[in-house]
Amino acid sequence: MKFPYEPIRGFRDLFGEESCKLAEVFSRSEELARRWGFERTFLPTVERFALFAAKSGEEIRRTMFVFKDKAGREVALRPEATASVVRAYLHSLRGRSKPIKLFTLVNVFRYDEPQFARYREFYQADFEVLGSSSVLADAELVTMLDEFYEELGIDHVIVVGSVKALRGVLEVEGIRGEEQDRVLHFIDKGELEKALELVRSKAKDPERASRVIEELATTEGGPEILEKGKELLGEEYSAPDLLSDLEKLIYFLPDDVLKRCKFKLGFARGLAYYTGLIYEVKVPGFPVSVAGGGRYDLLTQVYGGEPLPATGFAIGLDRTALAWKRQCKSKLEVIVIPIGEEAGKEALLVQRKLSELGFSSTLLDEFKSVKKAFSYAASTGAKWAVVIGRRELQEGSVVVKNLERGVQVKCPSSELLDCLLKTL
Amino acid sequence: MKFPYEPIRGFRDLFGEESCKLAEVFSRSEELARRWGFERTFLPTVERFALFAAKSGEEIRRTMFVFKDKAGREVALRPEATASVVRAYLHSLRGRSKPIKLFTLVNVFRYDEPQFARYREFYQADFEVLGSSSVLADAELVTMLDEFYEELGIDHVIVVGSVKALRGVLEVEGIRGEEQDRVLHFIDKGELEKALELVRSKAKDPERASRVIEELATTEGGPEILEKGKELLGEEYSAPDLLSDLEKLIYFLPDDVLKRCKFKLGFARGLAYYTGLIYEVKVPGFPVSVAGGGRYDLLTQVYGGEPLPATGFAIGLDRTALAWKRQCKSKLEVIVIPIGEEAGKEALLVQRKLSELGFSSTLLDEFKSVKKAFSYAASTGAKWAVVIGRRELQEGSVVVKNLERGVQVKCPSSELLDCLLKTL
Repeated sequence: MKFPYEPIRGFRDLFGEESCKLAEVFSRSEELARRWGFERTFLPTVERFALFAAKSGEEIRRTMFVFKDKAGREVALRPEATASVVRAYLHSLRGRSKPIKLFTLVNVFRYDEPQFARYREFYQADFEVLGSSSVLADAELVTMLDEFYEELGIDHVIVVGSVKALRGVLEVEGIRGEEQDRVLHFIDKGELEKALELVRSKAKDPERASRVIEELATTEGGPEILEKGKELLGEEYSAPDLLSDLEKLIYFLPDDVLKRCKFKLGFARGLAYYTGLIYEVKVPGFPVSVAGGGRYDLLTQVYGGEPLPATGFAIGLDRTALAWKRQCKSKLEVIVIPIGEEAGKEALLVQRKLSELGFSSTLLDEFKSVKKAFSYAASTGAKWAVVIGRRELQEGSVVVKNLERGVQVKCPSSELLDCLLKTL
Repeated sequence: MKFPYEPIRGFRDLFGEESCKLAEVFSRSEELARRWGFERTFLPTVERFALFAAKSGEEIRRTMFVFKDKAGREVALRPEATASVVRAYLHSLRGRSKPIKLFTLVNVFRYDEPQFARYREFYQADFEVLGSSSVLADAELVTMLDEFYEELGIDHVIVVGSVKALRGVLEVEGIRGEEQDRVLHFIDKGELEKALELVRSKAKDPERASRVIEELATTEGGPEILEKGKELLGEEYSAPDLLSDLEKLIYFLPDDVLKRCKFKLGFARGLAYYTGLIYEVKVPGFPVSVAGGGRYDLLTQVYGGEPLPATGFAIGLDRTALAWKRQCKSKLEVIVIPIGEEAGKEALLVQRKLSELGFSSTLLDEFKSVKKAFSYAASTGAKWAVVIGRRELQEGSVVVKNLERGVQVKCPSSELLDCLLKTL
C-alpha cells in the first residue's frame, strides 16, 4: 500500500514561518481577551447538526461536515463558535450577572471548495458579549478589533453598518421573513440587480423602495453619511429609528477608531441572524475580510430560550496571519552541543539550567567535531552555541560562543549565565 | 421543538475555574516548548482513517469517530497527534537537518465510555523529536516532563521502562508478531495471568520464560533495580542489550529527576508501536496517568517511508488541569463603570487606555447609581473600580476606588495611571 502523505484536500500541515505567525496571532488574541476582561471558555468541536441548522437554515448542510455518530445522532463539526456559546449559555450561565463576556479559540470546519485563504479547517478567536443591549457594547467590540489590528501593525478598514436600515425599509414595504432575507443575501453577494428586482416585484411602492434600497446599498463613507441616510430614509421610513444604532456607535467610538471606519448604509453580511450593527475588518489588497461580527439579539429565542441581547465577533486567525506582512522566525537562543556521549549528561544539565533561566535552547548530539557543531549552530539563527567537548567535560567547563559576534569564551559550567552575558 | 442545551454526551462546555486552569496549562505547555526549542506546528483534526489503522490496528475503529466525507473518503477525527506528525514529516520535512523537534496543541477524540478524566474530546500538548536515535533525546523528554510538573507544583512520579526487555525475552522464546503484542497488551491491562498463560503455551522454555516475564512485570523501584534486571535476564536473554537503553537513561537523567522516577522492568504501555523507552507521569491519588510517551523508531516504515528514529510524549492537558490543586481565578483588575449613556464614550476611552497599559479591565454600563456600581464591582474580585458619573463627566475626571482597601480618590482622567497607583 502506498500511503498518501499529503493532508486531506482543504486541510493543512503548518510549519516554520506559517505556523510561527499563526501561533503569534493566537497568543495576541488571548492577550486581547485578557485585557478586555473576557473569560476563556472551551466548547465542543462536535455538536448536534440541528444547532447550526436552526440558526443558519437547513441548506448550511451543503457546506458542513455532517455525519451520524455511533449512537445514531446527526452531528456536525462546528462551522463557527457562536451557536455553541449561546447553547452553553442556555445550559449553564443563565443565572449569572450580565453582561457575560466570553472568549474561545476554536478550529472550525467548512466543506467549501478550497482556495486562497479558504480552508476546510481554520482557526477563529471568538468574542461574545451576552446580556448587554447597549450600543456601547458594540462600540467596545469595534474598538477591540481596531486595537488588535493596530497592534499587529496591519493596515485595516472597519466596514460598519446596521441591518436595521435595509430591514426597516423592507418592513415598511411589506417585504418580510424569507423574502427579506433573500434581498439581504443578494446585496451581500454583490448581486444588487437581483435584489432590486425582488424589491420591485414585492414592495408596496416599488419605485420608491427600489430607489432607496439601491441608494442605501451603494452609499458608503465617513460618519457624515449619516446625514445622507436621514435624508434618504426621511419620515416615510422613520429614519431616526433605523439609524439610531449607527448614530450611537459613531458617538461612542474614539476618534482615531472612527477614522479607520467606513460606514455603509446598506451593509449586509452573510448570516441571517444579525439584528443590528454589523462590521467586517478589511485589509487593503487582501481579497477577503479578516474578521467580522455583529449584534444578534434573537438567537436565544431561535433555540427556545428567553430573549437575550447579544453581540460579538470572530477574528479569522489564518487570514490575519496571511495578511500580516512580517517575518516570523523561531526564537531559539542557544544551541547546546555535547561532543561524545559522556558530555550528554552535562549538556542536559546545561539545557535545563537555560530553561530555568527562561532561555529558548535546544540540544544537538549528533556532532563529533566542535568546528562542525559551531557551523551548524550558526545556520539555525541562534545567538549562542554552548559546546561541551571531552576536555571541557574533564574541566567542568563549557565553551560559549556568541554566533552573531564570533566572540568565544570558556568558563566553568556553574557560571553559565555570566558567561553568556560576557559575550554580548 | 425543544432544544437540548447540554453538549453531546462525552463533550464539555468549560467555564470559570475549569477553563481558567485548562488555559493556564495550555500556555505553560507552550512555554515549555519555547524554552526547549520545539517548533510549533498545526496539523489537521481530520485525517484518513487508514493513517490511524496502520499504526494501531483496524480495531481502533471501535473507539474512534470515523465517517465518510462528501467525496466518499473514509476519514476520522484524530485520536492523537503522532500519526499526523509522522505523516507531515514524510510529506514536507524529509530534507531538513535532524533532529527536528515539533510541538502541537491539539483537540483529540475518542469514542470511549465517558467517565472521570475520560472525555470524547480532550486536549493534548504533543512533543516529538524526529531523527535522533540517542537515548539523550529520551532523557531530554523525561526531564522536560519533570520540569513541567515541578513548575506547576504537582507531585508526580515518572514510571519508566523499556519495551525492549519484555520483547527481547519473548523474541528469544520464539514468541513474535501479534502474539508478542498480545502478551504486552495483557500486561498493560494488568491481566498478568492471561499474559503468562499465553507465554507458557508458546515459549520454547515455558517454565523459565513465564518466571522471567512475571518477575519483569512485577519488579519496580529506583535505579538499583537495573542490577536485578541484569541478574534476571542473564546471558540467556542478553541482559546488556535488553537493558542498555534503560541504563543509559539512568546515566543521563539529572539526579533530582531520577529521584522522581520509578523504574519498571516489564513496563508495557497501550500502544503497540513503541520500540524502546516508554514512560508515564502519575500523580499520587489521581486515577489515570496525566502524560506519557516513548520511542517509536519504526513508525515511518509502517507508512512506507525510510527508517527514522523518533521519540515523543503527550501531556494530557485536561487531566493535568484536573490534578492541579490550586485556585484559578479571572485576572480582572479594573471595572470601568459609566453612569448614564453620555459617560459611555469617556468610559470606552478609559478602558482602552487601561488596555494599552496592560491592565485587564471590563466595562459595565447597566448601573444607575455609583453606590450600586461599587458594590457590584467588589463582587467581581477586581482590584479597582473606575466610575464616571455625570459630575465627573463635566469635570473631565474619574473616581478611582481600590476595592480591596476601600481607598477612593477623584482625579483628572488624563492622570489615570497615577490615580490607580495612588490608591495602592
